[in-house]
Amino acid sequence: MKTRIGIYGYGNLGKGVETAILQNPDTELAAVFTRRDPATLTIKTSGVPVCRAEDAAKFQGKIDVMILCGGSATDLPVQTPALAALFSVVDSFDTHAKIPQHFAAVDAAAKAAGNIAVISVGWDPGLFSVQRVLAGAALPEGKDYTFWGKGVSQGHSDAIRRIKGVADAKQYTVPVPTALEAVRRGDMPELTARQKHTRECFVVPEEGADRAQIEREIKEMPNYFADYDTTVHFISAEEMRRDHAEMPHGGCVIRSGVTGDGKYRHTIEYDLTLASNPAFTSSVLVAYARAAKRLADRGESGCRTALDIAPALLSPLSPEELRAKLL
Amino acid sequence: MKTRIGIYGYGNLGKGVETAILQNPDTELAAVFTRRDPATLTIKTSGVPVCRAEDAAKFQGKIDVMILCGGSATDLPVQTPALAALFSVVDSFDTHAKIPQHFAAVDAAAKAAGNIAVISVGWDPGLFSVQRVLAGAALPEGKDYTFWGKGVSQGHSDAIRRIKGVADAKQYTVPVPTALEAVRRGDMPELTARQKHTRECFVVPEEGADRAQIEREIKEMPNYFADYDTTVHFISAEEMRRDHAEMPHGGCVIRSGVTGDGKYRHTIEYDLTLASNPAFTSSVLVAYARAAKRLADRGESGCRTALDIAPALLSPLSPEELRAKLL
Repeated sequence: MKTRIGIYGYGNLGKGVETAILQNPDTELAAVFTRRDPATLTIKTSGVPVCRAEDAAKFQGKIDVMILCGGSATDLPVQTPALAALFSVVDSFDTHAKIPQHFAAVDAAAKAAGNIAVISVGWDPGLFSVQRVLAGAALPEGKDYTFWGKGVSQGHSDAIRRIKGVADAKQYTVPVPTALEAVRRGDMPELTARQKHTRECFVVPEEGADRAQIEREIKEMPNYFADYDTTVHFISAEEMRRDHAEMPHGGCVIRSGVTGDGKYRHTIEYDLTLASNPAFTSSVLVAYARAAKRLADRGESGCRTALDIAPALLSPLSPEELRAKLL
Repeated sequence: MKTRIGIYGYGNLGKGVETAILQNPDTELAAVFTRRDPATLTIKTSGVPVCRAEDAAKFQGKIDVMILCGGSATDLPVQTPALAALFSVVDSFDTHAKIPQHFAAVDAAAKAAGNIAVISVGWDPGLFSVQRVLAGAALPEGKDYTFWGKGVSQGHSDAIRRIKGVADAKQYTVPVPTALEAVRRGDMPELTARQKHTRECFVVPEEGADRAQIEREIKEMPNYFADYDTTVHFISAEEMRRDHAEMPHGGCVIRSGVTGDGKYRHTIEYDLTLASNPAFTSSVLVAYARAAKRLADRGESGCRTALDIAPALLSPLSPEELRAKLL
């Protein structure tokens, strides 16, 4: 019996989930939900209904897991609890600071309805979180580092686009090589935000825009850029299309620590090199949808995160196959 | 309430578990069991009983989890099922091919007694297995590679020591740099054993031993060396003590694969650099003992592997702390 998946929101992430389902023969797409007019949407999978978001409830019993593909700022805080009252759900909520409050809201809704919800799935939060916990358990005396990039930060790109005179923008987060080397060597340095990452911005200015003013506004923007060494490159719309169309990302989690009598220093490193951030995140979402179905089938309910999911639950292989082949 | 741990077998691994317990304030050492005369054993922790292995049963109710620190060849296949009938247990059984049969024997004993057993814990099998499953779930279309080293292989060192004329020996497994680079690049090459690793042997010959004969016997030894490019260095006992006293190891698990429409290639890499293999493995064993206690406290029983353990169970932090700090 395949896991019947619903996609709620058909942007980059929703499209990625659709193609990821095609790579996982034990899953199938049951329906796509959109806030746009369904008639305007063409999806890849033939014979699958495209429906209005508000009609989701009609699919109870026809969908095992709804994957929520909206944004963390305004969509998911509302949608995940609402949908968790109807289905088992998976989301990629990634506003780290607001996870406890999102968890509480989703947990209440999922428990009341007897559904499973897995929130904050993806690579960070998600796979990186799993690595931080595994490494911290294996090396209790040590220090964790997370580096992001080189990759496109959606949030920082959006922040630049909101500046007056900016037609388009893309921001790359880049780890500082010397900092990364020191961490890999096991030096366990104390690093400020500025010492860990630089920010590289590619900006298409509107005609006649004040470039110096745009550059100043970017570099002085609090939280986003003020604490970093930031470079701004002005490029044409044509260059943006040609050189910056994709959304690569990645990064690493490194923990360095000592065991026992302090004599032995060990290093654990986890690296992701992703050609497309949304394509990879979507693929991870589908694996966690498989786990959500299995937990729901056991009669469990409530909210979970990647930290609560045993690795075996994510795999299409049976426990016996996993022990024989991958252990 | 601390997790009370028993150590069964006081070699390198047992000593490592003892020091790892000191790094984990929510655990405590309850007793050490040995097949030697307990009077001949001096342990680090004061006030903890050192007992004869056959007296373990007397400690039921005083030990939450027994960590088995014997070898996989002859000790664990007998000891783990026997001890799982008395306690919740954790072992580091690492004979990959025999894991299904070990699992079955331990599962039967643990279930009958209502205990939890976690077998094959460490880094491979163990953390590496977890990585293979996570990466396989995230990238269902792809290829896995495991490289070991540079590090000391206990089994290969022992095999050399059994050769006539060898006083002592240490064997390092070394990944082939060009193979590793091709995998990291995402080439997804097909690699034979010989193309992935070389074997470097340091041998102390007995006086008057036939070195040419020893070298030939090593290089032609089936399974261990015949399928690899092997180098043999003859050194003095003094050089062995000075340069090869430690047991460093490590390696990496790499999965490279494509998502969705095949357009995007991604790479996931997990690296361990371990100054001491037994010290690190011991530390991992203690983290899984914490998980075993938690599963037993929930009333679960039977055999588990690292693939069945949710990351959060390994951490001393509460689920709330984990979500707030590490997710």
